[in-house]
Amino acid sequence: MNDQPFDLDPALIDRFAAIVGDKYALRDQADIAPYITERRGLWHGRTSLVLRPGSVEEVSRIMRLATETGTPVVPQSGNTGLVGAQVPDKSGHDIVLSLSRLNRIREIDVLSNTITVEAGVILQTLQEAADAAGRLFPLSLAAQGSCQIGGNLSSNAGGTGVLAYGNARELCLGVEVVLPTGEVFDDLRKLKKDNTGYDLKNLFVGAEGTLGVITAAVLKLFPKPKGREVAFAGLSSAQAALSLFTLAMDRAGAALTAFELIAKRPYDFTLKHAQGVTRPLADDWPWYVLMQISSGRSEEDGRALIEEILSAGLEQGVVGDAVVASSLAQGDAFWNFRETLPECQKPEGASIKHDISVPIAAIPDFIEKAATAVVSVSPGARVVCFGHMGDGNLHYNISRPEGGDDEAFLGLYRPMNNAVHDVVRSFHGSISAEHGIGQLKRDELIATAPPMAIDLMRRVKAAFDPAGIMNPGKVI
Amino acid sequence: MNDQPFDLDPALIDRFAAIVGDKYALRDQADIAPYITERRGLWHGRTSLVLRPGSVEEVSRIMRLATETGTPVVPQSGNTGLVGAQVPDKSGHDIVLSLSRLNRIREIDVLSNTITVEAGVILQTLQEAADAAGRLFPLSLAAQGSCQIGGNLSSNAGGTGVLAYGNARELCLGVEVVLPTGEVFDDLRKLKKDNTGYDLKNLFVGAEGTLGVITAAVLKLFPKPKGREVAFAGLSSAQAALSLFTLAMDRAGAALTAFELIAKRPYDFTLKHAQGVTRPLADDWPWYVLMQISSGRSEEDGRALIEEILSAGLEQGVVGDAVVASSLAQGDAFWNFRETLPECQKPEGASIKHDISVPIAAIPDFIEKAATAVVSVSPGARVVCFGHMGDGNLHYNISRPEGGDDEAFLGLYRPMNNAVHDVVRSFHGSISAEHGIGQLKRDELIATAPPMAIDLMRRVKAAFDPAGIMNPGKVI
Repeated sequence: MNDQPFDLDPALIDRFAAIVGDKYALRDQADIAPYITERRGLWHGRTSLVLRPGSVEEVSRIMRLATETGTPVVPQSGNTGLVGAQVPDKSGHDIVLSLSRLNRIREIDVLSNTITVEAGVILQTLQEAADAAGRLFPLSLAAQGSCQIGGNLSSNAGGTGVLAYGNARELCLGVEVVLPTGEVFDDLRKLKKDNTGYDLKNLFVGAEGTLGVITAAVLKLFPKPKGREVAFAGLSSAQAALSLFTLAMDRAGAALTAFELIAKRPYDFTLKHAQGVTRPLADDWPWYVLMQISSGRSEEDGRALIEEILSAGLEQGVVGDAVVASSLAQGDAFWNFRETLPECQKPEGASIKHDISVPIAAIPDFIEKAATAVVSVSPGARVVCFGHMGDGNLHYNISRPEGGDDEAFLGLYRPMNNAVHDVVRSFHGSISAEHGIGQLKRDELIATAPPMAIDLMRRVKAAFDPAGIMNPGKVI
Repeated sequence: MNDQPFDLDPALIDRFAAIVGDKYALRDQADIAPYITERRGLWHGRTSLVLRPGSVEEVSRIMRLATETGTPVVPQSGNTGLVGAQVPDKSGHDIVLSLSRLNRIREIDVLSNTITVEAGVILQTLQEAADAAGRLFPLSLAAQGSCQIGGNLSSNAGGTGVLAYGNARELCLGVEVVLPTGEVFDDLRKLKKDNTGYDLKNLFVGAEGTLGVITAAVLKLFPKPKGREVAFAGLSSAQAALSLFTLAMDRAGAALTAFELIAKRPYDFTLKHAQGVTRPLADDWPWYVLMQISSGRSEEDGRALIEEILSAGLEQGVVGDAVVASSLAQGDAFWNFRETLPECQKPEGASIKHDISVPIAAIPDFIEKAATAVVSVSPGARVVCFGHMGDGNLHYNISRPEGGDDEAFLGLYRPMNNAVHDVVRSFHGSISAEHGIGQLKRDELIATAPPMAIDLMRRVKAAFDPAGIMNPGKVI
């Protein structure tokens, strides 16, 4: 491997640069740095060139030249992905294609309830544009201030809105994609129903840039809820949380817009380490639930519904204690508490994280079996379990033993992953519920997925990207 | 072409028959007849052999032998499809693979809200099983008493439940598929979130049996609504119906579980021809809407909501008149009125039908422009327009001119299709919203879809079925 970053022929770099103009062809390593390192610093790559095209036409010309010259291309939008999909590898052979200048909101159609946006639109900007038009765009996740919708679609992002509204995939009606050859596949449909052949859209969504470059998309909008009620509940077991979820779904259906599970340990970490959070409940409980109800009618209506659910839960002995936020500010504080959990794990030392899903009914059993698996790998390791219970999706994180050694613990990364993921597989779960595969889980996916699934995915990859220039080394 | 049905080598027929046993290998043309003719009699094919396997293992062995011998296979479940996808062509070279004996409900998981069923389960049986378990399976369509879920998934069926719950695709979490080679792809996941590689499931769903044979699926269940309220409204224009839809979505959100548009003509045809229907509204209106609200809480709650919507509609001058069903029986009668529309078109003579979708905002303009296109092809032709307005999906049917000649009118089939579909395309709509492509629309799809889409679909087809034995001549 060449330590110089100039593995690409300078004449070729000039040809690529000419497409976007010198200003938007970054060759200086200082300029390039933010594009080859992921924000947490876990993924570092190398490249001699970052291209920042300003139009779909320029993306198309870049891909045509890439195909002509066999140059690997790594598409990138907000660079907030957690599995290294958007970062080039260390070979220095890849160029980075940043979509961030394609940041126009092309259209909002409030009657059809759609918004048409380019890949580089920041998620929060999109949410705000929908809000200004009197609509809700429900995709919501921690990185929303900087992640961009192209990456959200390419990684089929999840987040806290999935329970009622679905993943990024379900929110997407149509895509515009530049294929490896530079051809533009315009499938920007606003249609809820369209049975004219194979579902190509859903191949590009979630493909992490390995089949083509998503340059724009039509996304669904929803009516804005008129009342939002948030409650915090304390429960004696994960089984009780499952009962409360079933009860809440039965009463609220699609009005149940969040059901987040939090174990005592991450709850306590947050009380200990977070600045300015207030204790949601007076007493301690083994488990907590943050629940949200959205009403299309009114605040009073939402409040009546959430109180009805909690009363029934208390009556049935499912809920130990509960408090409904008495104001929007307190509701926000509950959410802030939930969103602060991940960072409050950091002061407790090194951690090994898992983004898993299992069938909802299996959550209590999973939690029990996984705990045994964890301590068999690292006695004293502390399970930090929280997540989107309503989606069967847990962030099943492990902190090193109290007072233990960070490095020694991180040395157990692979065996810990294997132990937890083996339990996941025993419940027919997923080892990547919402973050994707990228570089992080590629080897494990190939080693443990049914060989037939890997074979079919490879056939798709070969059919769409026969030269293998789209984000090589990612996913498959 | 050979008029004898025995185009297949008798020795090969014996080899296929040995897999399922003689009882389930139909060779007699009298036994075969129901499998090669579609119920309305529009599609007739030929075959020497219908196989009725009783297990996934038998399906697998059939496909292995088919690949070995290059024998084309037409998968079929309930044989209710409307585009000829499930009927063999006239060559006599295909064998029919009936999934109807794979009719087990493998599991109902009320906590995870899933049901796992085999391809041959009749839709209504599935609905009833869900209901008995205290859950709702919302896929609902006219053929539900005889259509089977394998076909519903292969055609990505729509129906009246799409507005709140989605198409068959959105209701499906996982599939089990026998590939052309006989290999079994087991992807029977119960997961709402699973980002481990490409979305293979959605390729098989909607592929009309051209990529593999769906033998089983995991489907979503929902809480049963506790109150269902149905209303019939009279309106002065399609534009008013669009305003009412926007108003209803704003107030009810996901509780709005149906919004069906009906023009005066099909309404009048039904009053004229249907046995025992009652006039829903006292006065005549140019347009009607059947609207349904489902409440997770109670009948009273649903009633209050639907009345609130209609009152607001009346106040804003959007609704001319409206009646809320005063009993479940009257609600059923309103639905029966809606479901009777298609057959009440028959006594009016020959018709040319279209299953189209456009962006919801474009519906009023589409209706206006399409009407002009229709009479330019056949002056006096009568537009019979109704459909799932909330999904942008209209059954835009045309009856021959009053007193006109059936055969002369049907001679205009192709130009009428072209004229209507040209208007659909001008609104970026779909020429097959919910029925699929099959044999009926294959040539038109290939001729009019963006060449890039056709090219990508052909690559998918070649990647999954390189020998071209899966349902040849359908879709692509």
